[in-house]
Amino acid sequence: MGDNLKLTNYIDELENEIIEIRRDLHKYAESGWTEFRTASKIAKYLDDLGYEIKLGEDIFNKEYMMGLPTKEELKAHRSRALSQGGIKEYIEKMEDGYTGVVGILDTGRQGKTIAFRFDIDSNDGVESNSLEHRPFKEGFVSVNKGAMHTCGHDGHASIGLALSKVFKKFEEKLNGKIILIFQPAEEGTRGAKAMAYSHILDDVDYLISGHLGFSSNTVGEIVCNTGGFFSTTKMDVTFKGRSSHAGASPEKGKNALLGAATATLNLHTLCQHKEGIGRINVGVLNGGTGRNVIPELAEMKIETRGENNNINNYITERAIEIIKASAIMYDLECEIKIVGGAESANSDTELSKIIEKVGRDLDDIKSIVEQAKLGGSEDVTYMMNKVQQNGGKAVYVIFGTTLAADHHNSSFDFDEGALKIAAKVYASTAFELNRREEKV
Amino acid sequence: MGDNLKLTNYIDELENEIIEIRRDLHKYAESGWTEFRTASKIAKYLDDLGYEIKLGEDIFNKEYMMGLPTKEELKAHRSRALSQGGIKEYIEKMEDGYTGVVGILDTGRQGKTIAFRFDIDSNDGVESNSLEHRPFKEGFVSVNKGAMHTCGHDGHASIGLALSKVFKKFEEKLNGKIILIFQPAEEGTRGAKAMAYSHILDDVDYLISGHLGFSSNTVGEIVCNTGGFFSTTKMDVTFKGRSSHAGASPEKGKNALLGAATATLNLHTLCQHKEGIGRINVGVLNGGTGRNVIPELAEMKIETRGENNNINNYITERAIEIIKASAIMYDLECEIKIVGGAESANSDTELSKIIEKVGRDLDDIKSIVEQAKLGGSEDVTYMMNKVQQNGGKAVYVIFGTTLAADHHNSSFDFDEGALKIAAKVYASTAFELNRREEKV
Amino acid sequence: MGDNLKLTNYIDELENEIIEIRRDLHKYAESGWTEFRTASKIAKYLDDLGYEIKLGEDIFNKEYMMGLPTKEELKAHRSRALSQGGIKEYIEKMEDGYTGVVGILDTGRQGKTIAFRFDIDSNDGVESNSLEHRPFKEGFVSVNKGAMHTCGHDGHASIGLALSKVFKKFEEKLNGKIILIFQPAEEGTRGAKAMAYSHILDDVDYLISGHLGFSSNTVGEIVCNTGGFFSTTKMDVTFKGRSSHAGASPEKGKNALLGAATATLNLHTLCQHKEGIGRINVGVLNGGTGRNVIPELAEMKIETRGENNNINNYITERAIEIIKASAIMYDLECEIKIVGGAESANSDTELSKIIEKVGRDLDDIKSIVEQAKLGGSEDVTYMMNKVQQNGGKAVYVIFGTTLAADHHNSSFDFDEGALKIAAKVYASTAFELNRREEKV
Amino acid sequence: MGDNLKLTNYIDELENEIIEIRRDLHKYAESGWTEFRTASKIAKYLDDLGYEIKLGEDIFNKEYMMGLPTKEELKAHRSRALSQGGIKEYIEKMEDGYTGVVGILDTGRQGKTIAFRFDIDSNDGVESNSLEHRPFKEGFVSVNKGAMHTCGHDGHASIGLALSKVFKKFEEKLNGKIILIFQPAEEGTRGAKAMAYSHILDDVDYLISGHLGFSSNTVGEIVCNTGGFFSTTKMDVTFKGRSSHAGASPEKGKNALLGAATATLNLHTLCQHKEGIGRINVGVLNGGTGRNVIPELAEMKIETRGENNNINNYITERAIEIIKASAIMYDLECEIKIVGGAESANSDTELSKIIEKVGRDLDDIKSIVEQAKLGGSEDVTYMMNKVQQNGGKAVYVIFGTTLAADHHNSSFDFDEGALKIAAKVYASTAFELNRREEKV
Repeated sequence: MGDNLKLTNYIDELENEIIEIRRDLHKYAESGWTEFRTASKIAKYLDDLGYEIKLGEDIFNKEYMMGLPTKEELKAHRSRALSQGGIKEYIEKMEDGYTGVVGILDTGRQGKTIAFRFDIDSNDGVESNSLEHRPFKEGFVSVNKGAMHTCGHDGHASIGLALSKVFKKFEEKLNGKIILIFQPAEEGTRGAKAMAYSHILDDVDYLISGHLGFSSNTVGEIVCNTGGFFSTTKMDVTFKGRSSHAGASPEKGKNALLGAATATLNLHTLCQHKEGIGRINVGVLNGGTGRNVIPELAEMKIETRGENNNINNYITERAIEIIKASAIMYDLECEIKIVGGAESANSDTELSKIIEKVGRDLDDIKSIVEQAKLGGSEDVTYMMNKVQQNGGKAVYVIFGTTLAADHHNSSFDFDEGALKIAAKVYASTAFELNRREEKV
Repeated sequence: MGDNLKLTNYIDELENEIIEIRRDLHKYAESGWTEFRTASKIAKYLDDLGYEIKLGEDIFNKEYMMGLPTKEELKAHRSRALSQGGIKEYIEKMEDGYTGVVGILDTGRQGKTIAFRFDIDSNDGVESNSLEHRPFKEGFVSVNKGAMHTCGHDGHASIGLALSKVFKKFEEKLNGKIILIFQPAEEGTRGAKAMAYSHILDDVDYLISGHLGFSSNTVGEIVCNTGGFFSTTKMDVTFKGRSSHAGASPEKGKNALLGAATATLNLHTLCQHKEGIGRINVGVLNGGTGRNVIPELAEMKIETRGENNNINNYITERAIEIIKASAIMYDLECEIKIVGGAESANSDTELSKIIEKVGRDLDDIKSIVEQAKLGGSEDVTYMMNKVQQNGGKAVYVIFGTTLAADHHNSSFDFDEGALKIAAKVYASTAFELNRREEKV
Repeated sequence: MGDNLKLTNYIDELENEIIEIRRDLHKYAESGWTEFRTASKIAKYLDDLGYEIKLGEDIFNKEYMMGLPTKEELKAHRSRALSQGGIKEYIEKMEDGYTGVVGILDTGRQGKTIAFRFDIDSNDGVESNSLEHRPFKEGFVSVNKGAMHTCGHDGHASIGLALSKVFKKFEEKLNGKIILIFQPAEEGTRGAKAMAYSHILDDVDYLISGHLGFSSNTVGEIVCNTGGFFSTTKMDVTFKGRSSHAGASPEKGKNALLGAATATLNLHTLCQHKEGIGRINVGVLNGGTGRNVIPELAEMKIETRGENNNINNYITERAIEIIKASAIMYDLECEIKIVGGAESANSDTELSKIIEKVGRDLDDIKSIVEQAKLGGSEDVTYMMNKVQQNGGKAVYVIFGTTLAADHHNSSFDFDEGALKIAAKVYASTAFELNRREEKV
Repeated sequence: MGDNLKLTNYIDELENEIIEIRRDLHKYAESGWTEFRTASKIAKYLDDLGYEIKLGEDIFNKEYMMGLPTKEELKAHRSRALSQGGIKEYIEKMEDGYTGVVGILDTGRQGKTIAFRFDIDSNDGVESNSLEHRPFKEGFVSVNKGAMHTCGHDGHASIGLALSKVFKKFEEKLNGKIILIFQPAEEGTRGAKAMAYSHILDDVDYLISGHLGFSSNTVGEIVCNTGGFFSTTKMDVTFKGRSSHAGASPEKGKNALLGAATATLNLHTLCQHKEGIGRINVGVLNGGTGRNVIPELAEMKIETRGENNNINNYITERAIEIIKASAIMYDLECEIKIVGGAESANSDTELSKIIEKVGRDLDDIKSIVEQAKLGGSEDVTYMMNKVQQNGGKAVYVIFGTTLAADHHNSSFDFDEGALKIAAKVYASTAFELNRREEKV
């Protein structure tokens, strides 16, 4: 029995556990920067297997943690996590939202450093409790009101843990180092930058990441080279004016809502750029307190995107000018917070070709797409660019799976058969990279 | 001891009860159309005194009940009212929000019909729990979270009940009929129209109403002829579009928030009219659900005003056109609900002169202002106009009182010394009108 | 034959000349600051009669000359005026637009100083050449393309000249001083401020002015006390951005038109003020050069108005903030020029009562309106306020006349029968004021 | 001496004439649909050489002639053309703006049909009369005020005439048919569609067109495969409301400028589309007549663009909805005229490769760029798509040349050395295509 066969057989054996883990994480969904239970479970799993564990400030550059909840919110989430089986000794190291984990397997043998990245956070939203929704029907629907895995990161995390077991099992056949990165707060593109700008990627030769579903809806299909990541910036804006009685003394008010409406319209004019596609969205606007009161406050949630960083930077800079001018127009105070971001990035052709080769060798893979565009944003791009700047290579793989409903929909669910396939592709790629190294 | 003296002495005796009632109503504040406890207490009070009581559809023209809560909300409020001492037998007749009461004292003797109108609803808002806030310090702060008397209608209601006692006490000295109207939902100008367009005013010769505080901040001052009521319309608007992913398929969305922002700006251009002052305010705008989602929904709370009905009607009609066109612009569905309204109106000079005369005869009155403008809206104007159209006369009196904070502020409170003064002015006016009648 | 009769008989004799002068001025219409021919003719007329003539910097405070044409334009207009019979010796003193004249008749006898003010400029516009348009049919249609008397100032000027003859004729019966002020550039409210803030009004006890037509369309009717002058400010705004190719490099442009469109919408939100009516109008907006070019330039003509100076000042200040913020929003240069203005003002009751008395005594007057609102702006208000601040009195009279078409319409014409009536009212008022003085 | 050498030598001999023709056309610049002199000269030239000439309705589908001047304007231009040496017999056939020419050389021998397209119109604009501007210095500056060749179409036309001479000279070495298309009104993308949808392209196997300058600023460089043509639509919009006095009766007006400002802002929100880049530009907005008049009229010049037809169609459709809704919002009449358009298109790789081959064989070609994007719009795309739909092939070539100033600048001029090079590339390509045909 060849090595490959042993590997894939072993992963087949793990399938039940992979699914079990996924369902456990799904049930206790935790959104960005509050993944205390999730991350502590992951940490314990890796720790128990003998991985070197890194947590807290070692793996996060504080300066780049975007869109953090308040201290009070974090505290409440920590309590809940503990009450739901979160493990105290790890959670203590995650205060202030350090809800990521890095596990390192150093073979001691010379060789390349291969990193895998998994995002672990849930989305905001209330999960369907329709009987047609499998997680509800089979009892793993989210018990945390307002948090729900609608993007498959529960799956990503369980793939990562399966992988940790595989690498440990076949450790003697590996060279170099394996780094497993479990990242919080991908939703809102808030978490990756702080990890990318810590030192965890310093020696990484290959960075491999990916996603379940998206454009590919067939179990057994993979996209080997994913590009088309939009560069993006997420902003929260607050306008503060002065209220007054709308009938009796309208001229005494400073109308925050007129400022915000002006900003909204003008912001949406910003998408034209020579170099390609731009995007802007004022996704949320809430302003005013009463019908007969000149609105004192208005709050906006905004995002900009660009086909490349230039375009996104242009739109972001112009957006900030427009927001500030709207505030000046109505004599408002204005606060702009950057609460998320991602870059544009490319998968390396060489590494994609290896994924492709691995795919062709795996029986589970029925269809190979060489290249596709994501058409969205992903903050793993900070990590990809960082590794590439250091001379390494990066790739982003899409693993096809049938979806019960679109990503970010309250009835989202996927075919768990894709989980073991992803684990196989990832694991085989590591071994294939090792093998090529040896030949050289 | 002259009749006048007996009257005022009796009202001085009632002062403690007036204050007690006011504080009870303050503590169990109920906002528009949910005054189940308040109205049932009033009904019982009048019933016990021997007034003829009218409730429900007899005193409301259903068609004009504006800005009603949902059935579920009404139900919840009814339950609460019962749990707080509301009286079941009356509340049962108030289902669907008929939370007003009319009490009639028919002397059986020929004479004029004099109506008094009192509004009884609280505002929305959370009452201050600062120790400097007397209602909190002295234990009558609102126990109903989100409802608070910040406009003195608790006082108006207690004046009305005091008055009922006075008229009963001196019934043998009265001719004609006294009608006491306790109106719900003045806030948002929602309640009066439905009562005005029922038949309760059909035979009214004089309609007398008024307000504590406002422009007059001295106990013992009255404004005898209040005009300058803005005609007003209150609208709730909902835009419904279609959400889509702002990065991946922006063109699939129908952006409800862009429609609302366009409406907001353009609505505010509407205030110019040959005949005088106009007003518009988009007081609240809430739109969108997530930063990266094209906003599907936006909701606005709007009011228009005009120095006269013409102006307000012009602005309302143009506002509706602008709102509809904004919906068309972004292919949105659009719902416009009229949830409140008031008219412009004038106090009759003749009746004001009688108030003035009565004021001059009362020791408690230290200062008389002949005429002033309200500079706001009041839905009693529907009743005033109705009575005047029927050939009767109407007047609106302001009773000065010291305020702890502005109307509609969470620290609002007033000097209760004004309550008995108002009762004296109202009662004396009724007797003065009787007296004049006799002379003729 | 009494004095009054002699006076009115004499004015009846002058009627033909009054009409002739009016038609001459109509034919050679000259708009604001370019009334070189008109003013020189007036100067000669007064000079020939023996009036003391004042011209140029003596009667204008340079600092307040608003909305002047360019030097080149003034030069061209001077040339044209000379070619059309303008009188060189006076025109030379009017360089730079000093196209006003003050004529003084000092009786040498003690007494009050009574000033009359006449505006003399035409409007911009092309006069109708329909055969139904009397000026065309009878040969006095404007020969100056683009200039046309559509507001009756040709009539005002001819009334003023008739008056000069009357006062000269009856000089021996007058005391004190008569000052006749012929003011340029009332259209756009540009000319009065500079005359008001020179020293010509320093010793004026009574200032009398007025207008043909307006709200009163009956020959023989006068409005004795005109109020309701809107305070107003006229602004020219230029936005300068940067052009670029709209297809190839849209992000390189700085879009002056988007700035101007944003300003336009937001400016129109400014009309709400506690103290009363406000107005704003972006009357003209021109922007951009070509369909496929990001617009580099945009120009706006704006006016604000208020029922009083407070309101207008509020709107003007806010307008300037909005304009500047719109420029900042699109990174534009922005120039704001104040090119006209007028104040709110009141006619003095005492003086109005004298007009009323005079009116009752004149056979030509068939109808007297005591009081009316102008509902527009007039820059004579600077002079009225100035005289009143100095302790004098001012009044503004409207002289009814039938109109062929509305003011500012290309078919505007009026019944010239109103001219002699105005002359009679003005002259009689002067003599009445003299008479009252004597009595004291 | 090989055929190629003879060909290129002959073109070298023609260089002086090519330049002379270009300068003549430059001097008598005629903008879109008014090229009466230009087209008549071309017709005569081809006629004299013995080409079959097609004019008028034979070569234009009337329905698709966009952005035509008025009949009066056309008449004035015809007169001018006649006075400047235009040839009557041809001009008579061009009434109503049919200012294009098609010349056909049918060898009588079997073979492919090769069409070349040249645009011949000038731009709007006033040419520089600086001494540094060569056309001015050397006496061929435009004598037609307001028309100027700033895009090199004078050169394109002269290349086309040179080519006609070459093909005639070497007629016996050609097979099949040559069609030379001289197209009016490319500026504003108005002229091509009507020619493309006539029958002139029905049998065309190869369509070859191109442009001087653009991205390539080196004489001797060619771009063999030009793509990146934006699909585009040009619209003229008129809003008509109702004027009224802005001070006295603002509510009577229907404000066309507020409608246009609203449209302008909202139109600029339209550029986001899944499939790629979109563009919109309100390039010109003129509205209103006077500062104190509610604006009755507003006119806009708009263009939309898209990376492909889908995107442009989406933006155009949405733009029309926004424009109509803006009109509804202010109760305006609204007229939308489509005055120009172009499609997206691709050069055929096979044909580009032949251009490339031909380029490599020519001594004058110093640099070959295989592929580039235009980044603008060109209405030849209608012809390219038409030929490709019929099974033929199309290519668009850019001929590098040094520019004195950017395209569309009043100092635009180019190095005329590029003219003969373009003629050589075009001619050689025809012969190369013939040659390949023979081999088959």
